[in-house]
Amino acid sequence: MKDAKKLTFVAIQMGADAAQIEAQLKGFGLWPHPQMGAAGHLGFAIEPHSMPIDPQKLQSIAGIADVFWAPSAHPLVDAQADRAFEDWSPKQNFLLIAGPCCVESPEQIGRSAQMAARAGASWLRGGAFKPRTSPYAFKGYGATALDWLRSAADAHHLKAVTELVAAEDAALVAEKADAIQIGARNMQNYALLKAAGETHRPLLLKRGMSASLEDWLLAGEHALLAGAEAVIFCERGIAGLGQNTRNLLDLATVALLKRELGQPVIVDPSHAVGRRDLIPCMAEAACVAGADGVMVEIHPEPGKALSDGSQALDAAGLQAVAEGLKRVWGRAH
Amino acid sequence: MKDAKKLTFVAIQMGADAAQIEAQLKGFGLWPHPQMGAAGHLGFAIEPHSMPIDPQKLQSIAGIADVFWAPSAHPLVDAQADRAFEDWSPKQNFLLIAGPCCVESPEQIGRSAQMAARAGASWLRGGAFKPRTSPYAFKGYGATALDWLRSAADAHHLKAVTELVAAEDAALVAEKADAIQIGARNMQNYALLKAAGETHRPLLLKRGMSASLEDWLLAGEHALLAGAEAVIFCERGIAGLGQNTRNLLDLATVALLKRELGQPVIVDPSHAVGRRDLIPCMAEAACVAGADGVMVEIHPEPGKALSDGSQALDAAGLQAVAEGLKRVWGRAH
Amino acid sequence: MKDAKKLTFVAIQMGADAAQIEAQLKGFGLWPHPQMGAAGHLGFAIEPHSMPIDPQKLQSIAGIADVFWAPSAHPLVDAQADRAFEDWSPKQNFLLIAGPCCVESPEQIGRSAQMAARAGASWLRGGAFKPRTSPYAFKGYGATALDWLRSAADAHHLKAVTELVAAEDAALVAEKADAIQIGARNMQNYALLKAAGETHRPLLLKRGMSASLEDWLLAGEHALLAGAEAVIFCERGIAGLGQNTRNLLDLATVALLKRELGQPVIVDPSHAVGRRDLIPCMAEAACVAGADGVMVEIHPEPGKALSDGSQALDAAGLQAVAEGLKRVWGRAH
Amino acid sequence: MKDAKKLTFVAIQMGADAAQIEAQLKGFGLWPHPQMGAAGHLGFAIEPHSMPIDPQKLQSIAGIADVFWAPSAHPLVDAQADRAFEDWSPKQNFLLIAGPCCVESPEQIGRSAQMAARAGASWLRGGAFKPRTSPYAFKGYGATALDWLRSAADAHHLKAVTELVAAEDAALVAEKADAIQIGARNMQNYALLKAAGETHRPLLLKRGMSASLEDWLLAGEHALLAGAEAVIFCERGIAGLGQNTRNLLDLATVALLKRELGQPVIVDPSHAVGRRDLIPCMAEAACVAGADGVMVEIHPEPGKALSDGSQALDAAGLQAVAEGLKRVWGRAH
Repeated sequence: MKDAKKLTFVAIQMGADAAQIEAQLKGFGLWPHPQMGAAGHLGFAIEPHSMPIDPQKLQSIAGIADVFWAPSAHPLVDAQADRAFEDWSPKQNFLLIAGPCCVESPEQIGRSAQMAARAGASWLRGGAFKPRTSPYAFKGYGATALDWLRSAADAHHLKAVTELVAAEDAALVAEKADAIQIGARNMQNYALLKAAGETHRPLLLKRGMSASLEDWLLAGEHALLAGAEAVIFCERGIAGLGQNTRNLLDLATVALLKRELGQPVIVDPSHAVGRRDLIPCMAEAACVAGADGVMVEIHPEPGKALSDGSQALDAAGLQAVAEGLKRVWGRAH
Repeated sequence: MKDAKKLTFVAIQMGADAAQIEAQLKGFGLWPHPQMGAAGHLGFAIEPHSMPIDPQKLQSIAGIADVFWAPSAHPLVDAQADRAFEDWSPKQNFLLIAGPCCVESPEQIGRSAQMAARAGASWLRGGAFKPRTSPYAFKGYGATALDWLRSAADAHHLKAVTELVAAEDAALVAEKADAIQIGARNMQNYALLKAAGETHRPLLLKRGMSASLEDWLLAGEHALLAGAEAVIFCERGIAGLGQNTRNLLDLATVALLKRELGQPVIVDPSHAVGRRDLIPCMAEAACVAGADGVMVEIHPEPGKALSDGSQALDAAGLQAVAEGLKRVWGRAH
Repeated sequence: MKDAKKLTFVAIQMGADAAQIEAQLKGFGLWPHPQMGAAGHLGFAIEPHSMPIDPQKLQSIAGIADVFWAPSAHPLVDAQADRAFEDWSPKQNFLLIAGPCCVESPEQIGRSAQMAARAGASWLRGGAFKPRTSPYAFKGYGATALDWLRSAADAHHLKAVTELVAAEDAALVAEKADAIQIGARNMQNYALLKAAGETHRPLLLKRGMSASLEDWLLAGEHALLAGAEAVIFCERGIAGLGQNTRNLLDLATVALLKRELGQPVIVDPSHAVGRRDLIPCMAEAACVAGADGVMVEIHPEPGKALSDGSQALDAAGLQAVAEGLKRVWGRAH
Repeated sequence: MKDAKKLTFVAIQMGADAAQIEAQLKGFGLWPHPQMGAAGHLGFAIEPHSMPIDPQKLQSIAGIADVFWAPSAHPLVDAQADRAFEDWSPKQNFLLIAGPCCVESPEQIGRSAQMAARAGASWLRGGAFKPRTSPYAFKGYGATALDWLRSAADAHHLKAVTELVAAEDAALVAEKADAIQIGARNMQNYALLKAAGETHRPLLLKRGMSASLEDWLLAGEHALLAGAEAVIFCERGIAGLGQNTRNLLDLATVALLKRELGQPVIVDPSHAVGRRDLIPCMAEAACVAGADGVMVEIHPEPGKALSDGSQALDAAGLQAVAEGLKRVWGRAH
């Protein structure tokens, strides 16, 4: 288990050499800000973007009176750090999850599954229940689509993941899919996280559009506390300045999740950039940053997709992603 | 020269099959939004995050009445697309720029230059004039530091780049350095861009903290119009949600700059993440995303640095970055 | 019903005087951007932050070939524009909603109701089911608290509003409360909006932390389509730069909602600024911007509150808000 | 002088009743987060959005071992708090600054000055040197326009303020104008702040597009340290989500500047919302929030303006703003 202690404050002894202590803290990659103490002591507030350090290691430094840290608010998430997730963080290769935004017909999901399997994916994704910004947009074929998805996955020896949008469907989704996706809009829908967790399935938890890392980890804690087998974090871009990409992909947070916190983490470059031409290179960048895998949207005929077709890859596009990932994977790991 | 036309609107002929045209547009990776026309025509507004396409290719599609695009506002930037920048985009390897935040002494910059050269860097960076958020913070040793920087660069066969913060120093900086850096805070300081451009040096133009891609390209246009030999764009993280990384690194915009626009682009992972432990992997991710190089902060003794020491790499850290980049470079290019 | 047509594009006739048309468009408060057309026509893309205008009024201007607008995606929201909401937009005075973050005991909610009534509030708020970022935080007393809330409201002739967090509780909440609140975290929880709407109660719909105005209106459409009697929009601050206020209060969007779109809109300054000292003036600013009312958090003993006590007003603080609002109201309306 | 101490940390004595101390802190409007101390002590990190409090007042509370605060980084800004700025914070009425974006001709600025004077403005604004995102856009008539501005201001007994964009023009601008404006793009252009400060004129300092409050205060410190007579802070909207208003107006920060920090502060609703119809109500909201005045863009013929005409008010629009402000002012002050 990773140590999730976050150093926040260092109190200095009266008369100690503050400048020298400050230099030592910077040497550890900490960002200290000098604070005045009422009793004449000094202190250093530590910026959250500092390097991780075991606070107790500092205690023995001459001149340091006390060190403080924020207790972790998500012990269950911490406890799954560095756990072996054979399905999610295979040691031998990079995880590829592929499938259409929406399951549209047995034939469409079948062809998608075939594309996914040929490209080396181990998971098939596909929406049966779709959260749509407009209430008039197509919301998916529901339970029927779950059956189509399951059959297509089985036919191609893939595992299946699909989004849950209503607590009442949790048991059904858990029965048909190997993992349950929680979408960005529902990241802080705690009733849904509870229902999903109670199925004991692993959860693919997308990051909310303006969620801080801590908000996201706490959402994972909700799911684990309710019983989820595991929480896999999925970065898919946050709200940002950019109008040239659909959302703002935050790969440094992916690196943090994997390299500091040891969590299973994947990246959805399709929703992040919304542009087919940038999906391969951003998938590779995600791999290098530390992701365990990527999830991409595909469609046998992107122009005819019922939702998000503009960003769906066809077979050749998916093949390019898979090959790029293979090329980069060996170098980066 | 890259075609910088940006499709914005498609008008449809009366009676045409709008649904079929919409599907075709999506097939091209465009995000069309149906619009009503007063004369009974329909139209499609095209989202900025759509794939690039030559608008005129659409004109021959049955049912399309007219297509519109935004004329490029930066012809000089467009004209430098895909130009051979031997110093900036070497075809044979990845560019490494390294050096201290601030030039502190002949010895410190000398040791830094040695570290940089050993790691395979071709450029030495170092601040002589420092823009500081607080007026009481150390602002650099000015002209004297420029001499130290030049000597250290020459002694190790490196080129030198340093930041310009006041128009009046432009000639001096241009004399001592091979390229002029414009910092994030000054990205829209047009008087400074003009003065820097008039020296005919190449400019390393950092992205402003909340600059859109278009703002950034237009800042480059200011510099090129004034006479800059070239503008190299440098992503260093924008203002964001994240408190766990210093800024929010936007690698998808790096990919856009290189892969759609053909511009020379480098990434500064040091300021972006502000954490030594994440600098190597984010440097590699930048490489894979499409950057021509990275610029990192180093210091012989990070804890003693006069500024930003908390994020400076020591010799071993720099070596790790260089090795990681070499490993990834071959795979990605 | 307000006309929600949004002008997006103006096509120009061949040979027309584009400069003169551009001047006319600017005269109407529009922000036009010239576009090139493949057939030799010109066009103007219109920025979304332009003044509203009936697109068809432009059609008769000499030189304009065609005008296009985005059809409204939320006809039910548009249809409630300028409707008389006696409970929500009383013509004679400004609406005050007050109550504790959390209903903690019969005594606490009773004293709160008394404070609210004395200050001139017409609604009592109070949480029975609380969405909490941490799964270990107090989540409210549930159904029991609903009874305490109803009794306290009745005892002081107040209407009651409380948050719904799980679809399965919709009927119960609708039975006990006069209006149902949907929190910021659940703004795009469409299953919850549907369940809440089906109760036919009015909904108080808080804006999501990074929701655009259009996202918010569409969330309202979900609720109205499901049967909600009305949707009252509640601005409570969005994610922003500011660390000096809890969230970033966006009063210009409140002005837009009321003055362009004619929607019922209230402001929650408590969550927006998170500081008692700024609540009175921001409540008044909300009133002047166009809000129909404000919702503030109060507590008989703020230090002892089980949640968000740091921002709760005591009796004197609430009185100050109420008096400030009275003073400003007459002037502004 | 306002006390700019910012409480950041509270250390607790061994064995003290932490829960009771936490309740007391919340009672003061503080947001405490419990921290673990290595020596067995507890502590509370205090959120920056807490209410201001004199840290030393806490020291005598039983169980508190020590309190820490961030020393102010801007003593000169603090020292101008609550100073009487007769020109900027007139006690008897609200300040109105009006004028065109750009000084276009003696006639245009003359008519603008007349409009401003008739509406009760005391200051005339007008750009002679314009920072433009595109290098090809009109940049103003420079020195000539300064003369026209001065004459127009004198003819109508108004004071004049204009933007400085290049350090070399500082003396000239200071000679012709009563105050110097620093634009949002140049807020962290420290060379320009220094040159402007050295003229000893008051500075109107616009907030940068993504500047935190602290960044902004520190920019003011740069100017005061260089010799500026005073720094007047001007909020004009920051980068945000909103596409329906040009920028995101942050009135809570205006309230903070005035009510906590005692600084002179004005608001520019024209650039903030970019829509004529919302300028009057947002000007009034600014007044109520605590601003000393507003600055609005006007033009005798908005459609013909050389820049930003789409948001310029005509005479009737300006009159509406002035009347609204008068109506609200009495109530709010």
